[in-house]
Amino acid sequence: MEWTRETRYRAYADWSAETLLKLQAQAANSQYQLGYHIRPSSGLLNDPNGFSYFNGQWHVFYQSFPFGAAHGLKSWMHLVSDDLVHWKDLGLALAPDTKFDSHGAYSGSALPVDDKLFLMYTGNHRDQDWIRHPFQLGAWMDQAGQITKLDEPLITQPAHTTDHFRDPQVFKHRDLYYVVLGAQDKETKTGKISLFSFKDLKEFTDLGYLEFTEAEMGYMIECPNLIFVDDKPLLVFCPQGLDKDVVAYDNIYPNMYLLGEDVQLNKAKFEAGDNQIQNLDDGFDVYASQAFNTPDGKAYLISWVGLPDVSYPTDEENWASCLSQVKELSLKDGKLIQRPVVSMADLREKGISLQTAEKVNAKQQIIAESGEQYELKLTLDTDQNGTLHLAGNDDLSQSLKLEFSTGKDAYLTVSRADIGAQFATEFGTTRTILLPDQKALDLEIFIDHSLCEIFVNGGEHVITLRFFAEAGNKQIALTSPTEAALNYRGTFWKLKSI
Amino acid sequence: MEWTRETRYRAYADWSAETLLKLQAQAANSQYQLGYHIRPSSGLLNDPNGFSYFNGQWHVFYQSFPFGAAHGLKSWMHLVSDDLVHWKDLGLALAPDTKFDSHGAYSGSALPVDDKLFLMYTGNHRDQDWIRHPFQLGAWMDQAGQITKLDEPLITQPAHTTDHFRDPQVFKHRDLYYVVLGAQDKETKTGKISLFSFKDLKEFTDLGYLEFTEAEMGYMIECPNLIFVDDKPLLVFCPQGLDKDVVAYDNIYPNMYLLGEDVQLNKAKFEAGDNQIQNLDDGFDVYASQAFNTPDGKAYLISWVGLPDVSYPTDEENWASCLSQVKELSLKDGKLIQRPVVSMADLREKGISLQTAEKVNAKQQIIAESGEQYELKLTLDTDQNGTLHLAGNDDLSQSLKLEFSTGKDAYLTVSRADIGAQFATEFGTTRTILLPDQKALDLEIFIDHSLCEIFVNGGEHVITLRFFAEAGNKQIALTSPTEAALNYRGTFWKLKSI
Repeated sequence: MEWTRETRYRAYADWSAETLLKLQAQAANSQYQLGYHIRPSSGLLNDPNGFSYFNGQWHVFYQSFPFGAAHGLKSWMHLVSDDLVHWKDLGLALAPDTKFDSHGAYSGSALPVDDKLFLMYTGNHRDQDWIRHPFQLGAWMDQAGQITKLDEPLITQPAHTTDHFRDPQVFKHRDLYYVVLGAQDKETKTGKISLFSFKDLKEFTDLGYLEFTEAEMGYMIECPNLIFVDDKPLLVFCPQGLDKDVVAYDNIYPNMYLLGEDVQLNKAKFEAGDNQIQNLDDGFDVYASQAFNTPDGKAYLISWVGLPDVSYPTDEENWASCLSQVKELSLKDGKLIQRPVVSMADLREKGISLQTAEKVNAKQQIIAESGEQYELKLTLDTDQNGTLHLAGNDDLSQSLKLEFSTGKDAYLTVSRADIGAQFATEFGTTRTILLPDQKALDLEIFIDHSLCEIFVNGGEHVITLRFFAEAGNKQIALTSPTEAALNYRGTFWKLKSI
Repeated sequence: MEWTRETRYRAYADWSAETLLKLQAQAANSQYQLGYHIRPSSGLLNDPNGFSYFNGQWHVFYQSFPFGAAHGLKSWMHLVSDDLVHWKDLGLALAPDTKFDSHGAYSGSALPVDDKLFLMYTGNHRDQDWIRHPFQLGAWMDQAGQITKLDEPLITQPAHTTDHFRDPQVFKHRDLYYVVLGAQDKETKTGKISLFSFKDLKEFTDLGYLEFTEAEMGYMIECPNLIFVDDKPLLVFCPQGLDKDVVAYDNIYPNMYLLGEDVQLNKAKFEAGDNQIQNLDDGFDVYASQAFNTPDGKAYLISWVGLPDVSYPTDEENWASCLSQVKELSLKDGKLIQRPVVSMADLREKGISLQTAEKVNAKQQIIAESGEQYELKLTLDTDQNGTLHLAGNDDLSQSLKLEFSTGKDAYLTVSRADIGAQFATEFGTTRTILLPDQKALDLEIFIDHSLCEIFVNGGEHVITLRFFAEAGNKQIALTSPTEAALNYRGTFWKLKSI
């Protein structure tokens, strides 16, 4: 399939069911397919949308183009869960079927209001000159899952932005409703976060751009989220074209966060104090994360594991990307912590205790046959240098490499240079984080076929990446550059599918 | 949608993907949808096919018409499992896409041979006069799930049968391959089981009709299976139009079994001794069961929970039917026993112990809020009369009723007359089995939204049925016609989704 404008924007009614059934089977049969993460039933998945708690269940939707690994005509697919881990796929929820979302039902959010779930999203309409008209649209979902779209747009493009105006996040703060939106300022062509108040879910007031930094945020900000973590405001957003001198990053586009001291929404002022804008994830593939606050004040985040304008090896199988596991957010010593949710432990099969083994040829085999769905908790003692290999072949010439030093100038480098199908190599094949010197290193690693999520030192960092190993490469081992044995302890669990 | 010949046999390529996505979402969102059983991703599911163990996994396929609750153009959908309980849906596997299966890839079986899975199934072709030509077709599935159909039919319609010639079961016995097929004899228009030897999976020899009874088996036999249970041969089959004086049954068509003493395949002789043909299931909705022997000689069976020519309430939601849970077969005192597989216990949440409670107004409430996925093990003491209500409303005017006597003339009657949407009432609203007098009654009841499976006295009987209760009716209670308290003990577990 050649992805022309015509094929990307072909109506769902003009694709055949036979094609869709074959695409669904192809995705399901892929050796790289995820077992315990949200994945597309076919085609391309991107941003998580409408992440919320409603009617006694967790809800998440995802951006879908069901007909191939391309950004074509988008819809929302819907999943529900009782525990944030086991998700049930309910299929197509919001189709691009009105004049306002004729060219895509794009990203948005959800907020429970009384006995319904309010959905707010961006509908794109392209006119005959292919000029984009972004509309911020609303819909109500009832308890039976029936969705009724509002007849008219809630917000149209303001005079002060370009047509890059999208991704509404609707939220409630101190009994008032607000919406933040990603925007490009018309005059300066720079990335902004637009803020609106939304009185009684009826009357919008443009509060202007949210003031949160002096720095220029590239040419566009996508997917802004404003939530509260342990009562502190947190901005999560994706500045495109951000100058790397402002904040260093490696991926094509970064997903950033900024922790605040306070926020004054009526003044559109986000006070960050001494806090700096930082990478939300230190891996290769996280983008468009969506977060929300539960009624009891907890904060959960889920990410698209995929990037705009990046091709993945599964493109050849006509499907692409997945969502991350849900991460619970908290603060510790003023730092943002991301943790797996408690129910992730329900996926565990019987655990295997691990500890430093006899060394053979400078290699310590930890697990010979890991399978493709597992959790590995490992503590590496202080003052050590070595490499942890995941999905390794026999001689470890192929593996996902976690090189670490826990001595002075401590660091962790993840390299996917020597594992399977290579992709996006123009953005580098390694990612490095600096670690506190001379401290033991705690790793919680989740592997799901072609996805790796590493929680470092209790969630101070998360390193997320896709990798595409050859089938059968399932060894976990430690190697050290010297003959010194490496000291570790930990637990290994195979994980069940959801 | 009106189900004309044109709409039933419309090519999959001529249905739209939009229609399919909506049908999939509608099925997924149904309040009646199954949580831990195999269910259609859209449209109608019927016979289980290709139930087998291959490449380290359990495989099952099902007959699918994806476009509505009708018997239209059939294909095979594929699922795999590690434990016979948690199934992963791999989607469309065998499409009706050759001249030999142009009007449906109908039922069949699977047998692992070396590193491939051999599939054998009935392809129907209709000529321009709409005359059916049944072809027995073959295909090979490799370890990656790729299926390659054989170019030519394996068996064409024999001179001695009509075009009712289908449902091949291929199996190996004492190092030789055989195939049994459902057939209608051309001369007598009676139901037969056709037997072929299949030398080296290449050369077929028609061994004639299997001799297994003197009685006339209606006008057609569908879905024959010949397997071995504890070294005794077992026939499982569906005689259509069977005289109820031959074997009594209540459903539109029965699913029967006959246990044998011996089988001589070269003579096409199945020796039943004193054994009688019996109903495989004593409920309302089991048909087209498929069984097979594992390499280590175990016997597993799975059933279509649905019947030909019967409409179900979910027809209005454009989907229909499900598969039963897998049942392990064994013999006890010369009787066939059907048991849940061991892994079913992995679905259990924390158990709640149950025992005789104080009686209030002749009603003993066992569980007030059962939810819609649970297992209930209950032992009812001897010499008692009463009714166990499932999915009951507050005053029990609505419930699925299990009326029992454990005294003299002991029996169990299941009634769906007083629960939710009624259907197939022309075949009665109750089913009754006789029980041994003055013995305690052991029930293992599995409820999954709209499906009930009851294993009686350790699997001596299975009673399977669909029911369509009003949402919110979730009480489990016992009532007795007298003021006497009913004595029971047991355990209740909520069950997880798969």
